[in-house]
Amino acid sequence: MFAPHPPPDMVQVPIDGPDVTEVVASLGFGHTLQRRPFSADPERLSFSSYKQGNVANFSIIDSTLREGEQFANAFFDTQTKIRIAKALDAFGVEYIELTSPAASEQSRRDCEEICKLGLNAKVLTHIRCHMDDARIAVDTGVDGVNVVIGTSSFLQEFSHGKDIAYITKTAIEVIEFVKSKGLEIRFSSEDSFRSDLVDLLSIYQTVDRIGVNRVGIADTIGCANPRQVYELVRTLRGVISCDIEIHLHNDTGMAIANAYCALEAGATHIDTTVLGIGERNGITPLGGLVGCLYAANPEYVKDKYNLPMLRELEDLVAQAVEVKAPPMNYITGSCAFTHTAGFYPHPPTLSNPAIFEVVNPEDFGMTRRIRSVPAV
Amino acid sequence: MFAPHPPPDMVQVPIDGPDVTEVVASLGFGHTLQRRPFSADPERLSFSSYKQGNVANFSIIDSTLREGEQFANAFFDTQTKIRIAKALDAFGVEYIELTSPAASEQSRRDCEEICKLGLNAKVLTHIRCHMDDARIAVDTGVDGVNVVIGTSSFLQEFSHGKDIAYITKTAIEVIEFVKSKGLEIRFSSEDSFRSDLVDLLSIYQTVDRIGVNRVGIADTIGCANPRQVYELVRTLRGVISCDIEIHLHNDTGMAIANAYCALEAGATHIDTTVLGIGERNGITPLGGLVGCLYAANPEYVKDKYNLPMLRELEDLVAQAVEVKAPPMNYITGSCAFTHTAGFYPHPPTLSNPAIFEVVNPEDFGMTRRIRSVPAV
Repeated sequence: MFAPHPPPDMVQVPIDGPDVTEVVASLGFGHTLQRRPFSADPERLSFSSYKQGNVANFSIIDSTLREGEQFANAFFDTQTKIRIAKALDAFGVEYIELTSPAASEQSRRDCEEICKLGLNAKVLTHIRCHMDDARIAVDTGVDGVNVVIGTSSFLQEFSHGKDIAYITKTAIEVIEFVKSKGLEIRFSSEDSFRSDLVDLLSIYQTVDRIGVNRVGIADTIGCANPRQVYELVRTLRGVISCDIEIHLHNDTGMAIANAYCALEAGATHIDTTVLGIGERNGITPLGGLVGCLYAANPEYVKDKYNLPMLRELEDLVAQAVEVKAPPMNYITGSCAFTHTAGFYPHPPTLSNPAIFEVVNPEDFGMTRRIRSVPAV
Repeated sequence: MFAPHPPPDMVQVPIDGPDVTEVVASLGFGHTLQRRPFSADPERLSFSSYKQGNVANFSIIDSTLREGEQFANAFFDTQTKIRIAKALDAFGVEYIELTSPAASEQSRRDCEEICKLGLNAKVLTHIRCHMDDARIAVDTGVDGVNVVIGTSSFLQEFSHGKDIAYITKTAIEVIEFVKSKGLEIRFSSEDSFRSDLVDLLSIYQTVDRIGVNRVGIADTIGCANPRQVYELVRTLRGVISCDIEIHLHNDTGMAIANAYCALEAGATHIDTTVLGIGERNGITPLGGLVGCLYAANPEYVKDKYNLPMLRELEDLVAQAVEVKAPPMNYITGSCAFTHTAGFYPHPPTLSNPAIFEVVNPEDFGMTRRIRSVPAV
């Protein structure tokens, strides 16, 4: 396995070492910079106009205890679920989504237990668009219900065989029932990127008018690409007034970028799981997304979340599902802030490694390392 | 560690099982579909107009033996380099990029050895924009030279302190020298997304006019986002006529998506490394990128690359750098094609798991698995 500690030829560079101003002065360039060069500074980016939409105005719905339960090696007992829920809450996610209480008696009891913890995060449960499930859900003590139904032609054929008129009728019944109980409600399609666009917009407009809190878009199979996500969310933003949540599978490795583009286009809520665990190879990972949004707006993200806790949270979940995050994991990987000096063309690495960092490791409780490779 | 074999409650589903046509017939829906529902089929995507540019017309420049050498735990001896080069060639990448022969005497000798292998892939080496390095490079037997120079204001200050006029003058000298030797040449900026756009376009236009084969854009610090990449590449595409290569670091987890958007905008060459290894947490991973581009155009990607060899190639590099790819790795992860049945709302999983797959596991020599979670 990868060595957890730096080999002897690595040095740890203190974060409170000389900053750019001092380095510039020492190099004799005769002027100073006003701040450290993390590229998140909009003044330093030629294309800063792209930092738009809700990139600095969003909520995270962490689904480690729902989507994550569908990961190949996830078997969470009640105590593990409680530990994960408390850790997510301490990290600062705005919402925690739980497996449907209609899935099993154990799921129902666990849902009730987590609702009793008195977390700051709102607790949601994720149910089918069906009155039977809705009745069970509202009795658990959750703050809100995330309703989902398949709307793509594939799912209409293979999943429930319902047509759009029937879907709409059922959605209205469930939404009005949940709202009558004073709970928050989201209505989501499934496999949204293979659904008929007119059907999709029609259903969303209907549920928006009857007062749903959020609609959800789901890339259930992980087929979407960033500009496609941007366009769908922006189109939707133009026809509804409620919030927009997005759930993105990572089969082709674009789930973080797709989430970023969804926020640019006006989405308000992003689904994540710790380490991205979920069906197949999972969804948008919490750590990667937070790192990405930090790079765009460090102050906003530092204020919202307990960033130095990220690694502990990831370790907790990694242990629960018996996986090991790779050394190249975003932010918390053992080599995420390891710079190699000695190869061309990187002469400035040793003198000022921060030039090559979009994330300040100190903000995540991480340490920068320099690996020196002597010429042979 | 994660179990390499499926636990007892998993079943392996043969790929040559019933296809969608048969499933539809068996469900009695009274009509058939023409093909299996991998979403890559443009007819099934509402947003297929976004499949544009060079998404099905690109070359891969694999830099495992250059960028990958800068990974925290990479120490490749000559025999390991040769094994990796041969495996990359057998997989079918169009280019293999090697560490500068000016970096060390060992690098120079290894470069010569790999050039003598008679690979189908073109062999490149990556050098500073400097005549000393260029003279050493052209004598190694490489097919081409990838020249790089820092153009961002940070690198102008901290790296070499050269201004743009000087950069341009040096670039012309090096390019004309390499071309005079009959070799392919690319000229790349470094840290392109923090460089001044007018400087950047001005230099690229100059080198394009003197006949460079490619220009390169590099997101050296991993700060770029997909729509930003699209815009920069598209802008560049409008002012030059040569090929465009892009090199994308993965600090914020968007390197695959950024590569995809670069191709949409007209880039022609994408830099990868096996498992994404490189400086810090690395660059666009070869496997993830190939999976992503397969999802867009399966036939094109299947024709170009030996896809069932991907896992073996990844295992070879993983062993060389002593890392273990996580179970949620794109395509080759042990759970990439593991579906969980038993949780709502996924009733169709067991009857037709391909509904939820954007990649046909068979094409990569992988196996689909169903994990059954009995209700408690």
